[in-house]
Amino acid sequence: MNDRILYGYWRSSAAYRVRIALNLKQLSYQQRSIHLVKNGGEQHSADYQKLNPNQLVPVLVDGDVTLNQSLAIIDYLDETYPEVVLTPLDNERRYIVKSLAQDIAVDIHPLNNLRVLQYLSGELSVEEGDKTRWYRHWIEQGFTALEKRLESCSGEYSVGDAVTLVDACLVPQVYNAKRFDVDLTPYSNIVRVTTSLNELNAFKRAAPEAQPDAAVL
Amino acid sequence: MNDRILYGYWRSSAAYRVRIALNLKQLSYQQRSIHLVKNGGEQHSADYQKLNPNQLVPVLVDGDVTLNQSLAIIDYLDETYPEVVLTPLDNERRYIVKSLAQDIAVDIHPLNNLRVLQYLSGELSVEEGDKTRWYRHWIEQGFTALEKRLESCSGEYSVGDAVTLVDACLVPQVYNAKRFDVDLTPYSNIVRVTTSLNELNAFKRAAPEAQPDAAVL
Repeated sequence: MNDRILYGYWRSSAAYRVRIALNLKQLSYQQRSIHLVKNGGEQHSADYQKLNPNQLVPVLVDGDVTLNQSLAIIDYLDETYPEVVLTPLDNERRYIVKSLAQDIAVDIHPLNNLRVLQYLSGELSVEEGDKTRWYRHWIEQGFTALEKRLESCSGEYSVGDAVTLVDACLVPQVYNAKRFDVDLTPYSNIVRVTTSLNELNAFKRAAPEAQPDAAVL
Repeated sequence: MNDRILYGYWRSSAAYRVRIALNLKQLSYQQRSIHLVKNGGEQHSADYQKLNPNQLVPVLVDGDVTLNQSLAIIDYLDETYPEVVLTPLDNERRYIVKSLAQDIAVDIHPLNNLRVLQYLSGELSVEEGDKTRWYRHWIEQGFTALEKRLESCSGEYSVGDAVTLVDACLVPQVYNAKRFDVDLTPYSNIVRVTTSLNELNAFKRAAPEAQPDAAVL
């Protein structure tokens, strides 16, 4: 009997980050799929709004704790199950990891979220080509800066040779970049690190296509 | 001699959050103004890019530490100068505070950042009225959810009766909402809490108009 439940969606980057963290920590969990497109978006249902009035995924329920926001969830997991930590405890790496993770999770991803793309098409009548350029633009802006950072701080992974929170944010972001055909050749460190990460079992099992609710494309 | 330097801009919400945190902790600091509009945006200068390749404010330099991302900076300050902490240490409030702060700093603010508004006007030729509606839309979406949360978790301030990270994120966001004439009447808890916070000296001294680089409007 497992009362740890992740409400997510196979293609949600934020849910993908949490799946990676849970897998790295070898914490088992049940998944509940909140389909972001079907039925007008299940994240808008009255039941789901009780879990998260923001109508976004993911939400983790772990016993008595119900929590949204992927970075808050991963902090909770790090502090509650510290056998494997994604945010290093030593000061030298700790704040580099926090700031780089936020460079991705705060300054790239929210701009490309589904609800934003829907607003661009629906309210602003932005055409498909312009929407794709928007999507790529924010990734390219963010990756240009991140690549410069990784030149000095990366090892086998984004920050040194241990897997960190940055990696849990980076892999879903690169997945999105590939999906929208972003040219990744200028970002050799990002590509190198991501290739190594995707060979790890925890990352393989967290991949969108490996989820029970993945669509057959 | 004070070697703590905050690179910011009077109207930057993220810099405003850090000013609030520094003031609450009674940590003195020098300010360096990075004018986000003049000279094509000083955040794009070669010198500033050495501090932050993301070309965004703020950056805090504190002795040997150089750090961007307002939430990472405030975590660093909490853990380095723990006499006053903005993220409570007890589990009951700790993760509520983290998730609510991110509801503002991740899911509202990045969508309304200057560079995004510039992209809407410049690349997508979005007109002024539609840009204002965009701005208000993301605040209204976020505030509707936050108001619901505050109904159960707020006291004198956003989470209980002590000032937290949520308050440091909320006050700048409400400042922006007022600047863009968002109707705040549906958000009575947000208004109540913000009114109390703005009476505190740490918040008054952090306000945009109180900064040395504030424009005379």
